[in-house]
Amino acid sequence: MFLTRTEYDRGVNTFSPEGRLFQVEYAIEAIKLGSTAIGLRTKEGVVLAVEKRVTSPLLEPSSVEKIMEIDEHIGCAMSGLIADARTLVEHGRVETQNHRFSYGEAMTVESTTQALCDLALRFGEGDEESMSRPFGVSLLIAGHDEHGPSLYYTDPSGTFWQCNAKAIGSGSEGADSSLQEQYNKDLSLLEAETIALSILKQVMEEKVTPNNVDIAKVAPTYHLYTPAEVKDVISRL
Amino acid sequence: MFLTRTEYDRGVNTFSPEGRLFQVEYAIEAIKLGSTAIGLRTKEGVVLAVEKRVTSPLLEPSSVEKIMEIDEHIGCAMSGLIADARTLVEHGRVETQNHRFSYGEAMTVESTTQALCDLALRFGEGDEESMSRPFGVSLLIAGHDEHGPSLYYTDPSGTFWQCNAKAIGSGSEGADSSLQEQYNKDLSLLEAETIALSILKQVMEEKVTPNNVDIAKVAPTYHLYTPAEVKDVISRL
Amino acid sequence: MFLTRTEYDRGVNTFSPEGRLFQVEYAIEAIKLGSTAIGLRTKEGVVLAVEKRVTSPLLEPSSVEKIMEIDEHIGCAMSGLIADARTLVEHGRVETQNHRFSYGEAMTVESTTQALCDLALRFGEGDEESMSRPFGVSLLIAGHDEHGPSLYYTDPSGTFWQCNAKAIGSGSEGADSSLQEQYNKDLSLLEAETIALSILKQVMEEKVTPNNVDIAKVAPTYHLYTPAEVKDVISRL
Amino acid sequence: MFLTRTEYDRGVNTFSPEGRLFQVEYAIEAIKLGSTAIGLRTKEGVVLAVEKRVTSPLLEPSSVEKIMEIDEHIGCAMSGLIADARTLVEHGRVETQNHRFSYGEAMTVESTTQALCDLALRFGEGDEESMSRPFGVSLLIAGHDEHGPSLYYTDPSGTFWQCNAKAIGSGSEGADSSLQEQYNKDLSLLEAETIALSILKQVMEEKVTPNNVDIAKVAPTYHLYTPAEVKDVISRL
Amino acid sequence: MFLTRTEYDRGVNTFSPEGRLFQVEYAIEAIKLGSTAIGLRTKEGVVLAVEKRVTSPLLEPSSVEKIMEIDEHIGCAMSGLIADARTLVEHGRVETQNHRFSYGEAMTVESTTQALCDLALRFGEGDEESMSRPFGVSLLIAGHDEHGPSLYYTDPSGTFWQCNAKAIGSGSEGADSSLQEQYNKDLSLLEAETIALSILKQVMEEKVTPNNVDIAKVAPTYHLYTPAEVKDVISRL
Amino acid sequence: MFLTRTEYDRGVNTFSPEGRLFQVEYAIEAIKLGSTAIGLRTKEGVVLAVEKRVTSPLLEPSSVEKIMEIDEHIGCAMSGLIADARTLVEHGRVETQNHRFSYGEAMTVESTTQALCDLALRFGEGDEESMSRPFGVSLLIAGHDEHGPSLYYTDPSGTFWQCNAKAIGSGSEGADSSLQEQYNKDLSLLEAETIALSILKQVMEEKVTPNNVDIAKVAPTYHLYTPAEVKDVISRL
Amino acid sequence: MFLTRTEYDRGVNTFSPEGRLFQVEYAIEAIKLGSTAIGLRTKEGVVLAVEKRVTSPLLEPSSVEKIMEIDEHIGCAMSGLIADARTLVEHGRVETQNHRFSYGEAMTVESTTQALCDLALRFGEGDEESMSRPFGVSLLIAGHDEHGPSLYYTDPSGTFWQCNAKAIGSGSEGADSSLQEQYNKDLSLLEAETIALSILKQVMEEKVTPNNVDIAKVAPTYHLYTPAEVKDVISRL
Repeated sequence: MFLTRTEYDRGVNTFSPEGRLFQVEYAIEAIKLGSTAIGLRTKEGVVLAVEKRVTSPLLEPSSVEKIMEIDEHIGCAMSGLIADARTLVEHGRVETQNHRFSYGEAMTVESTTQALCDLALRFGEGDEESMSRPFGVSLLIAGHDEHGPSLYYTDPSGTFWQCNAKAIGSGSEGADSSLQEQYNKDLSLLEAETIALSILKQVMEEKVTPNNVDIAKVAPTYHLYTPAEVKDVISRL
Repeated sequence: MFLTRTEYDRGVNTFSPEGRLFQVEYAIEAIKLGSTAIGLRTKEGVVLAVEKRVTSPLLEPSSVEKIMEIDEHIGCAMSGLIADARTLVEHGRVETQNHRFSYGEAMTVESTTQALCDLALRFGEGDEESMSRPFGVSLLIAGHDEHGPSLYYTDPSGTFWQCNAKAIGSGSEGADSSLQEQYNKDLSLLEAETIALSILKQVMEEKVTPNNVDIAKVAPTYHLYTPAEVKDVISRL
Repeated sequence: MFLTRTEYDRGVNTFSPEGRLFQVEYAIEAIKLGSTAIGLRTKEGVVLAVEKRVTSPLLEPSSVEKIMEIDEHIGCAMSGLIADARTLVEHGRVETQNHRFSYGEAMTVESTTQALCDLALRFGEGDEESMSRPFGVSLLIAGHDEHGPSLYYTDPSGTFWQCNAKAIGSGSEGADSSLQEQYNKDLSLLEAETIALSILKQVMEEKVTPNNVDIAKVAPTYHLYTPAEVKDVISRL
Repeated sequence: MFLTRTEYDRGVNTFSPEGRLFQVEYAIEAIKLGSTAIGLRTKEGVVLAVEKRVTSPLLEPSSVEKIMEIDEHIGCAMSGLIADARTLVEHGRVETQNHRFSYGEAMTVESTTQALCDLALRFGEGDEESMSRPFGVSLLIAGHDEHGPSLYYTDPSGTFWQCNAKAIGSGSEGADSSLQEQYNKDLSLLEAETIALSILKQVMEEKVTPNNVDIAKVAPTYHLYTPAEVKDVISRL
Repeated sequence: MFLTRTEYDRGVNTFSPEGRLFQVEYAIEAIKLGSTAIGLRTKEGVVLAVEKRVTSPLLEPSSVEKIMEIDEHIGCAMSGLIADARTLVEHGRVETQNHRFSYGEAMTVESTTQALCDLALRFGEGDEESMSRPFGVSLLIAGHDEHGPSLYYTDPSGTFWQCNAKAIGSGSEGADSSLQEQYNKDLSLLEAETIALSILKQVMEEKVTPNNVDIAKVAPTYHLYTPAEVKDVISRL
Repeated sequence: MFLTRTEYDRGVNTFSPEGRLFQVEYAIEAIKLGSTAIGLRTKEGVVLAVEKRVTSPLLEPSSVEKIMEIDEHIGCAMSGLIADARTLVEHGRVETQNHRFSYGEAMTVESTTQALCDLALRFGEGDEESMSRPFGVSLLIAGHDEHGPSLYYTDPSGTFWQCNAKAIGSGSEGADSSLQEQYNKDLSLLEAETIALSILKQVMEEKVTPNNVDIAKVAPTYHLYTPAEVKDVISRL
Repeated sequence: MFLTRTEYDRGVNTFSPEGRLFQVEYAIEAIKLGSTAIGLRTKEGVVLAVEKRVTSPLLEPSSVEKIMEIDEHIGCAMSGLIADARTLVEHGRVETQNHRFSYGEAMTVESTTQALCDLALRFGEGDEESMSRPFGVSLLIAGHDEHGPSLYYTDPSGTFWQCNAKAIGSGSEGADSSLQEQYNKDLSLLEAETIALSILKQVMEEKVTPNNVDIAKVAPTYHLYTPAEVKDVISRL
């Protein structure tokens, strides 16, 4: 009775007869092509860890940024189209700075996440800030505010969820299972670092080195680990 | 004489020869994929109850929001695309705040419902606030104003109805039948809570816990039940 | 020599080789799916009567509005897409209020009807007020001004006619025949009420009750009948 | 070598390989579906006569307007889409009033005709006043200015011609032949009335009555005949 | 290797693989459907002569305008879509008036021609003055300025050429050959009139009369011949 | 694996799988249909020579302009769509005049060339000055500034090169070979004139006359040769 | 289940079912058609070297610019569509000048690179500065700021990476391998020059001469080598 799925999947904003938006679902596929990223929330703070695909020894590893600071109390790890992620992060930086300027205090982590999702949802609307297609990126947003540490996960549809632990990217399926086995709410930050990196190690094809992973924490402020600090975590595996 | 249905169903705003708008009908299908939500009006106030699909034990259940406050005297339960619902709720919050500011009194529940439907109707019109496709969400809007408690049901076409009781989402068909059997105008708020949750229990595949349902009431102000309060209702089943 | 009809019927504003605009014709089909509405003009005033499809016993019948007030001297009955009708009625309310404010007197019934048709005609033009498709609704506009009582009938093409009596919606064909048999210019308002409801009764599949019909008159001001008043008319059948 | 005609006839403004604009030609077809209208110029003034299709005895014949006043010295008869004609007439009324206001004198008949054709020509241009398709209407514009009485004929392409006599609409072919036989420049206004109505009678399927024809003259001001005056002309046939 | 021609000829502004713009070429075809127009430049001034297709004896021949004044020292003959030509002529009148107002002197014939071609070239650009398709008209622009008499020929691509003599329209091929045989630079204006009309006579199917041809000269000001003056030229053939 | 070339070549700005922009390549084809133009740079100045296709003896040869002045120190020869070239030249004239006005000195030849290419590159961008398709024209821009004489060659992609000698148009292939054989940096302007015309003579099908070629030089100011001067060069062949 | 790849690759901004953006990937193909460019970072500064395709001996080699200055401390080498690269470079020049003006200091190399990528990412968005298709060009951006010398590589998706050495264009694959073998962080600038040119020599089909390669360095300011300096490097091979 209906056309096959393929007749509905190219209009940016067209419902299929079953009520699905395929372009959003395909953008979600773009994430599955991306490198793996992992986040864990502990009482002491949030840990983010990402795989970096450094395709050539001549590439400067520190320029492959998969974890970025949004505000001093918020950072995010990303998987998918990096240039899209940069646009979202830049938007988040402006929003959080404006909030500090207008209200004299830091924006909450949830409001910041909501602001990024509002931009993501408005694709195809033709206004100045939005894009003409869904953003092909997922974020793990780690932050610390008056409600303590928190971790959010966003997808290209502009939806977000609060999580205790979450993996995104090509290795997310296996990593999520491992997280469910190993996570508990009483983990120390140190234990969370070790779990994040050990799971990342399982899903990566190469040996883990300070060159091909990045780690950051928000506890309570954002800090990207130096190669030495990463090396230290690796040594604990 | 006519093309088959499938030739008319991709233009956002195209009538079929029988006078139907298929993209709106497909958006309505999106609701049928959503989680179930139930509303009941009593003389004492209105009760809303929703199923929450918490797909992973690592997800923070409270971040899966399917019931949201619009103003202190209005709340709504939703089924369908959550990001779309957030846009509508945000619009409702701005409208009700503006009304308080301009007129020094609360907006009526019907006017608020009408304002959300006006936005929903204007999809595909290309102006700043509207979307380029129908909103893929239904709302159960519960409120209390000078006319007493009231419950409204909206769909993606921008139409709304006032109801005594209504279910939306994937389990709505069975839930609506049960509501017709069990509803009467003299129910107490306490009885309404029990009926809502017992019907939700029938259509859910999992055991009902404070983690996978949310309950709220407007009586006469909006209140989202704490896990303890939800547990209390569950214990009465 | 020409393509079949189906090749010309999806462009919103495309003439077929015979000079027809099919999207307008299909919108007219949308009316034929709607509930039946009837209007009669008498010397004493105009009567409107509509069938209300209350699909569930839990729906509040008064919230299924098929007759609405435009100004104190003008009301209208509608058939087709209700959300579209609301946009037209809202436009009419603004226009009549503006007229009162600017000229200190009521807008005539014909000018009001013309204003609604102007908006209906401009579909697909891309300006702010108009829609991107024809309005899928017909109106029976009843009013009373310096020219006495009058009844207008509008269709989705933006055309209008003045009538003594008219039926629209799914039962309009049979109802129009009955009107031609039973109408004469010397009917009293009371007789017009009885004729309207008796004809509505013929085309409705259910028993007529105060819950599934609405009656209104403009004589000389708009008045929507209370359930008791409707019951009274039913008892006269 | 070329595609068949049907490949070029749906773009609003696309030339076919032979240099034709089919959408304009199809709009001209819309006129051929319309009711017949006739105009005759005499030295004493211009006569317009139209057939009115009153499809139901409950329709108010005077509300089926096929002859309308533009300014006190200009009137027009129309055939085709009536809602389109109203837009043109309304534009003409604004233009002639503006001219009176700016220059303190009446706009000439030719300038008024040119103004209507300018609007008709600009379809598909996307500016505020123009439509997205050709106007599906032809006008016979009768007027009287410093050059004496004049009659213009316009078509959907935005072209106009000055005529001594002209018929438009479904019966125009036969009516034009009769006009060529019976017209001469020395006709009195009275004779022109009789000729117009007798020709209209030939092309109409029903008996001519004051209910189904309208007559107007511009001599030198616009006057729409009362039913009694129409009856008087009918009696002279 | 390439698609056939027909795949490239409907986009308004699409190059074919051989570098051709077919919509412009098809607009040029529209000229070939038009009535014939002829222009000759002499030392005394320029003569324009056109065939008028007066399709009915009831049409006022003088309202079929194929030669129009642009400014007192410039006139033009046209072939193709008359409504398009009027837009160009109106544009030319505004430009020449503005020039007189700004600079206190007449615009040169070449500058005026360039202004018309600028407008013609910008079709499909979406700005306010331009059209969404090529102008389907060719002009013969006759003028007299400080450089003496001059004759320009324009086509729908926005290109123009200065000529001593030129024919456009359906009979242009034969007329151009005759012009090449009969033209020389020392013709008197009187001889040019006779040549123009005798060539027009050859390509017209009907007998030449003051009703079906128009003649104008710019010598040095624009003058459209009266029927008596045309009759005088005919009598010299 | 890919579609054939023909599937990618109609979108104005669509890359093919091999990374090609076919509409630009087809516009370049438009140049190959154009008349031949040649430019040579000497130490004394730059010479431009073009073939003029005077299709009828009644055409004024001087109105077929293929060499135009941009500023007193810059001229250009063109091949392709002449109306497009005029737009570019007009843009160049405005830019160079603005530069003189703003900075009190002549714009350099390279800056002027860059300004024309900026406009050419922005086709399909929808802003006010740009066109909706590539400009179908190549230019040879000859100029003289503080760096001495220079010759630039532009193509429809908005790219430009500085050359010592270059031919464009239908005969460019043969002409370029001849230029490579005969050019050296020590040519006198007189020798360059002779070479340009002798090469043009080879690629033209007709006999070279002052009517069907144009010659210009920038040495150091722009000068278009009079027929007598052209005749003089011809006599030297 | 899905359409073949070719069904998704023409929409500028359409995801394929696997989450890929083919138009960006095709633009990346455009780079593979371009001439080869190489960059090396040393402690003393950065070296850029490019192949120039001088297709005719009459072309001025210095006008084939493949290395351009952005600011006095930043230069870039390019491969792909040169006109696109010019737009990016021009944008970079404006940004760096604005930064100097606003902050009184030089823009960092990374910020400049980010600014170019922001513009590249926004293709298809319809705002004033962006293009309607991806930029078909890759850049090697060499600079020197407070962080010392740095080299960035950008692609059409708006992504960038910091590198120690990188090759782009048609010969990039072989050149990148050679760079990995020969690069080390302790190279002197002199050694880097020699390596860059010797690798370029391997991938070029012609003999290397000062006419067909360009070399530049940023150490710490931008300097494009003179033919003599290039000759000197060649002599060292």
